[in-house]
Amino acid sequence: MTQLRGKTKTKPAAAGDRAQPVSPLAPKSLPKLPPLAGVRLAAGEAHIRYKDRTDVLLAVLAEGTQVAGVFTKSKTASAPVEWCKACLKGGVARALVVNSGNANAFTGKAGLEGAHAVAQSAAASVGCRAGEVFLASTGVIGEPLPAEKITRLLGSLVHDMSSSGWLEAARAIMTTDTFPKLATASAFIEGKKVTLNGIAKGSGMIAPDMATMLAFVFTDANLPAAVLQECLAAGVKPSFNAITVDSDTSTSDTLLLFATGKGAAHAAIAKASDKRLGDFRAKLDALLLDLALQVVKDGEGARKLIRIEVTGAENDEAAKRIALSIANSPLVKTAIAGSDANWGRVVMAVGKAGEKADRDRLAIRFGGLLVAEKGERAAAYNEKAATKAVSGREVDIAVDLALGKGQATVWTCDLTHGYIDINGSYRS
Amino acid sequence: MTQLRGKTKTKPAAAGDRAQPVSPLAPKSLPKLPPLAGVRLAAGEAHIRYKDRTDVLLAVLAEGTQVAGVFTKSKTASAPVEWCKACLKGGVARALVVNSGNANAFTGKAGLEGAHAVAQSAAASVGCRAGEVFLASTGVIGEPLPAEKITRLLGSLVHDMSSSGWLEAARAIMTTDTFPKLATASAFIEGKKVTLNGIAKGSGMIAPDMATMLAFVFTDANLPAAVLQECLAAGVKPSFNAITVDSDTSTSDTLLLFATGKGAAHAAIAKASDKRLGDFRAKLDALLLDLALQVVKDGEGARKLIRIEVTGAENDEAAKRIALSIANSPLVKTAIAGSDANWGRVVMAVGKAGEKADRDRLAIRFGGLLVAEKGERAAAYNEKAATKAVSGREVDIAVDLALGKGQATVWTCDLTHGYIDINGSYRS
Repeated sequence: MTQLRGKTKTKPAAAGDRAQPVSPLAPKSLPKLPPLAGVRLAAGEAHIRYKDRTDVLLAVLAEGTQVAGVFTKSKTASAPVEWCKACLKGGVARALVVNSGNANAFTGKAGLEGAHAVAQSAAASVGCRAGEVFLASTGVIGEPLPAEKITRLLGSLVHDMSSSGWLEAARAIMTTDTFPKLATASAFIEGKKVTLNGIAKGSGMIAPDMATMLAFVFTDANLPAAVLQECLAAGVKPSFNAITVDSDTSTSDTLLLFATGKGAAHAAIAKASDKRLGDFRAKLDALLLDLALQVVKDGEGARKLIRIEVTGAENDEAAKRIALSIANSPLVKTAIAGSDANWGRVVMAVGKAGEKADRDRLAIRFGGLLVAEKGERAAAYNEKAATKAVSGREVDIAVDLALGKGQATVWTCDLTHGYIDINGSYRS
Repeated sequence: MTQLRGKTKTKPAAAGDRAQPVSPLAPKSLPKLPPLAGVRLAAGEAHIRYKDRTDVLLAVLAEGTQVAGVFTKSKTASAPVEWCKACLKGGVARALVVNSGNANAFTGKAGLEGAHAVAQSAAASVGCRAGEVFLASTGVIGEPLPAEKITRLLGSLVHDMSSSGWLEAARAIMTTDTFPKLATASAFIEGKKVTLNGIAKGSGMIAPDMATMLAFVFTDANLPAAVLQECLAAGVKPSFNAITVDSDTSTSDTLLLFATGKGAAHAAIAKASDKRLGDFRAKLDALLLDLALQVVKDGEGARKLIRIEVTGAENDEAAKRIALSIANSPLVKTAIAGSDANWGRVVMAVGKAGEKADRDRLAIRFGGLLVAEKGERAAAYNEKAATKAVSGREVDIAVDLALGKGQATVWTCDLTHGYIDINGSYRS
């Protein structure tokens, strides 16, 4: 296990940014990711915005690698998002290029040209078609991407590939993340062991950015793109689509799943519903959740991880909307930041969600402790115990609507002065 | 004009609360409201939560007073909101009782009983039916309303009524407001002058409260409840329904409009669309907007008023949703707090609104200055000029989608450390 502390005491410095301390929610140590057949990695310094750190990741993928992806729902998506969506139709990937420091978002025609130039350059270096090169960019938006800084680097990076560079890969894609995000798992497909490795970057901000989430998962399993897409679409719901830091949606959110097919030979799988894929899907789901929670734990200014479970809603969709209403409420988030067992604000957030709710049936628990029920404060309410339940690094809020069987769980972090510090200071 | 500074240097102290300085956006002086025929007022100290200040307002209304109202859309509305909704069916009002310090929200059956007790007591003092007494409560939620503290006071208040106590009335309903909110206007109905007086309280917070908005408008015009209701419903859209502080919706939001009919005799008006009501409606609309903007200017921690105008949307509803998406974005609000001309975050907020938007048609202006257009930064973009445009106390953000004719304007305030201070500290 690589030790986290020491190596990343502060966030990667952007010019003029104040360094942020490592999130108190960061893992004590980083997982060591094993080599994964069919994936080679290299990270380099293109000096797009940062100094003295890597900011470009090149991943070269074995021939025949299948790919699936999910993207931001933003109507103002970045150029790389548009590029990936178009490439995804082919279902085949040979390379991934990610840069930090510039999001290539809201950069007009020049932005798409920049993306194209990077893909062309990577394709030439790797020996594939541009449409097999997937792209992601994260960082400042609205500034033209200095594509030549990246293309200049790719030719040398391709000669410097390694199968063990996962930590370096995770570091190269960070913006204001205070720790690199990695996860690994192994799964069995009909007795044959396959590996899953994932890296992610979370909601950090280098002014004038917005929170951006990128995640890339690689497996040596041999699965067709359509199966991967179905697995990914299902896995993203209770993980990356169940987290929120500040309710703001990035123009760049990208989650890609690559399957090289170069691991142990296993039975051909043609359908995501194939029972032989059960273990793989369970491990994929867990890995996605692991990465997603790392993103929340590194939310801007986060000092507490908040888990919100809604049960008894009319249906699952209603439960999710209510859970997100609570998770995105600045009043709930500031209360938890202050270790204030302020269940009244949870009531408010339920009420404003617009979903069916009956005040007189609602029950609210903090850390399992009943604080409100049947339209009023719980009879056994004890301020000291309630305060204790919201005072730790991890806070559980449970809301039961007692209306139906709908349920959902989402995660968020508290809203602290750190968020204002990071986002409210002038760009420099 | 009553001078504001000095009298309300700090917010009314709740036990243990830290005093907040008066908002820098507060008016330099307070308007003096004239007596209004058919309305008498008294404020008293019930010591519900506060010490050394008034916390109960009794307004006695002339016989035959007509009333209209709009309320929070929260599914967990407070007991007084439920009470008022029921009373409104009668269309007639003889009294209004407002208390601060306790919201009587999420207080179950006891809450409704408390509301009923207050209404009964006021009815007995005034000599009317309980169903003609309108109620509003604001303050801590989830705690039983000490109704007897209010009922005890009402019997003496009714002997202490005055027609000039508007400032005292506005002060009695404050929670963490840093200044009392008042507005007055006169209008002509077929050459006969009528008066409109309004008071409001805004989004202040005494832990463990939520932001609560109350507003009461009185006129001596002679208008039936149905006409008032139509005028109010139309007037609230571009005013109170076009402001947001933190996207959180109170359980208690209440806006009532009373017409005593005791002013200058004027023609009977049976329809809100009657052209003779044009001036009255315009003045009512302006007064509602005035009060609504006072609420935003006193938003928790507010140091800047932000006006967001969206044009060129598919329709007005889409424009409103996009404008609110911008207004509620923590990233936009923190950027403005930091005088950061961060138009990329405006792009993001447009993108996440879920409404039709075309990145390549979008134009963004700060204070009239074009900063982005056609999918990229404006050619003439100048950082210094853009920064200046967002550095004042009032910031204008204009977004043109160039898609249709839909438009909307909303107002919000910036998100500062003050918000975290007020809402993130423990209740005491």
